[in-house]
Amino acid sequence: MNFSSKLLENAVAEFAKLPGVGQKTALRLVLHLLNQEKEDVEKFSGTISKLRNEIRFCSTCHNISDQQFCEICSSHKRDQSLICVVEDTRDVMAIENTSQYNGVYHVLGGLISPMDGIGPSDLQVDTLVERLSNDEVKEVIFALSATMEGDTTIFYLHKKLKQFNISISTIARGIAFGGELEYVDEITLGRSIATRVPYENSLSR
Amino acid sequence: MNFSSKLLENAVAEFAKLPGVGQKTALRLVLHLLNQEKEDVEKFSGTISKLRNEIRFCSTCHNISDQQFCEICSSHKRDQSLICVVEDTRDVMAIENTSQYNGVYHVLGGLISPMDGIGPSDLQVDTLVERLSNDEVKEVIFALSATMEGDTTIFYLHKKLKQFNISISTIARGIAFGGELEYVDEITLGRSIATRVPYENSLSR
Repeated sequence: MNFSSKLLENAVAEFAKLPGVGQKTALRLVLHLLNQEKEDVEKFSGTISKLRNEIRFCSTCHNISDQQFCEICSSHKRDQSLICVVEDTRDVMAIENTSQYNGVYHVLGGLISPMDGIGPSDLQVDTLVERLSNDEVKEVIFALSATMEGDTTIFYLHKKLKQFNISISTIARGIAFGGELEYVDEITLGRSIATRVPYENSLSR
Repeated sequence: MNFSSKLLENAVAEFAKLPGVGQKTALRLVLHLLNQEKEDVEKFSGTISKLRNEIRFCSTCHNISDQQFCEICSSHKRDQSLICVVEDTRDVMAIENTSQYNGVYHVLGGLISPMDGIGPSDLQVDTLVERLSNDEVKEVIFALSATMEGDTTIFYLHKKLKQFNISISTIARGIAFGGELEYVDEITLGRSIATRVPYENSLSR
């Protein structure tokens, strides 16, 4: 692109670094910001800068938090003996939105992925082991993506955690609610037949 | 959404104000920035803030520029007697990319649109009239969108400019190059028959 201004070109280049944002979209966003009031743009850039500089992670579960301990970890209403292991903060938000879970979390910060060069030492694995050694935890639930990376991570963590006297579970896999059988992929359908559950157990409580 | 942090919530809200960015995309972008180095995020927010505070518009053509006069207006290689009237800086970039135009520009900063409350006084109309009174301009080309707003703007400007002894033209409209006839819309096809040109004139020089 032929930019008439270096300032404009730099701003477009910065926006184009964001995931899923190309040159044209970046230009559209930058021109939108140029049309806004100076104070609004200052607020935009200030909020982002403040976020990166002041953000903290809960010392217990490593979820994004404003304090040293997040609201969930410091709540007396939550069952501290039940830990749900997730990949990142989006998963915490998704599970919280269901209103079906009353335990606490442990945010790994990623999944084991040799292809991307992410090993156990890049994740919050040691801190999870530590929590289990110190605290009175009764159950650990793995709520990780049903992908190769998710399964690898569960396999690794299971080996690490079986030394403790706790029950270890994973969230149920199978056909989604509202899913029509003919559109379900073969692997999911095949496994959901192999891992069928007694009818009484299939009813959600 | 259930945010675990006020800082995170604010940053997502700011991103979600951008055109075409919803809450989920905003969250993805913010979490991406959180994973970047502090210096990189500082550069991102700094560049945007700097852009809005330091951007200037060429005193002659009102295109975005770093100096008082843009490179095109101050170039001796450009034909200063030929002015192409466009809506915004994106149109200047598009025309420059064709390498087919050697004149200068006049950026209106919008189009007349009563529906959106944009009248002639919101656009750089007076400054265009001024340029024509002072400078030795021979031709004005309207390169505006082929929409209701574009046509309204051309109609208005034409009335304003016909007092001057200059030729006024609009960019050619018709079927696009590579366009297959059966897929061209009726209005475009109908008009391109009505405004047919002698074969010799249709060859681009």
